[in-house]
Amino acid sequence: MDGVEKSAKDEADVREVIQSWLAAIKRKDFAGILQNHSPDIVMFDVPPPFQSRGIDAYRATWDLFFACSSYPVVFDITEMNIIAGADVAFAVATMRCTEPGDHGQRESLHFRLTMGLRKINGQWIIMHEHHSVPALD
Amino acid sequence: MDGVEKSAKDEADVREVIQSWLAAIKRKDFAGILQNHSPDIVMFDVPPPFQSRGIDAYRATWDLFFACSSYPVVFDITEMNIIAGADVAFAVATMRCTEPGDHGQRESLHFRLTMGLRKINGQWIIMHEHHSVPALD
Repeated sequence: MDGVEKSAKDEADVREVIQSWLAAIKRKDFAGILQNHSPDIVMFDVPPPFQSRGIDAYRATWDLFFACSSYPVVFDITEMNIIAGADVAFAVATMRCTEPGDHGQRESLHFRLTMGLRKINGQWIIMHEHHSVPALD
Repeated sequence: MDGVEKSAKDEADVREVIQSWLAAIKRKDFAGILQNHSPDIVMFDVPPPFQSRGIDAYRATWDLFFACSSYPVVFDITEMNIIAGADVAFAVATMRCTEPGDHGQRESLHFRLTMGLRKINGQWIIMHEHHSVPALD
């Protein structure tokens, strides 16, 4: 493969890791959610805490997410751009999920997502996630 | 240089780009702030809007920041980790600035920062910034 083909393959591989993660979230499959994550992942999530360091703390953020979710789980990309090098990549996305509304109904929550990945032994691993909404005040 | 030395040099070069950006913020130097940014930068900022696409929209986020800042400008890294490959890198940091308090005094604001960079013609360029605080509700 030449450089351009390699780069396209890396981008496709990163996209597959992210799509697999999204599919696992939708079926509430914790093993699938954690499958391509570093033990040292640093998570900046929409709700507190300020940061979650390590895979156990990361997993706990999904306990909180599912406690506030209904079924079917909504967790979708509205737009995503992946920048993949030979060994480091990041993804920038706008996303949509739902949250409980004031009157028991579900409301759409639009949020921003940045992911950082590193290729380790030929496999793309998620090292970092940053999910957020703009501050209200 | 071998691979390890190259990687350390890339990490040091990315750190220098970020330190130069921070120094420019502290002296309210717009040219310095924008110096190593892509024309196509995507910014997810602490306050709205939801996203700012392109260098003009990115510059406008700094107009808003300086309108709410006092001097000397506080905009400091509390902790930062850089993951740099040969051509793509990202940085994960916790940061501190100040915001106006309820009684006219300055209050510390701790926020999270993720940056995505790409090496273009040998120069590290900031393609993406994501600044946020956890949601309050």
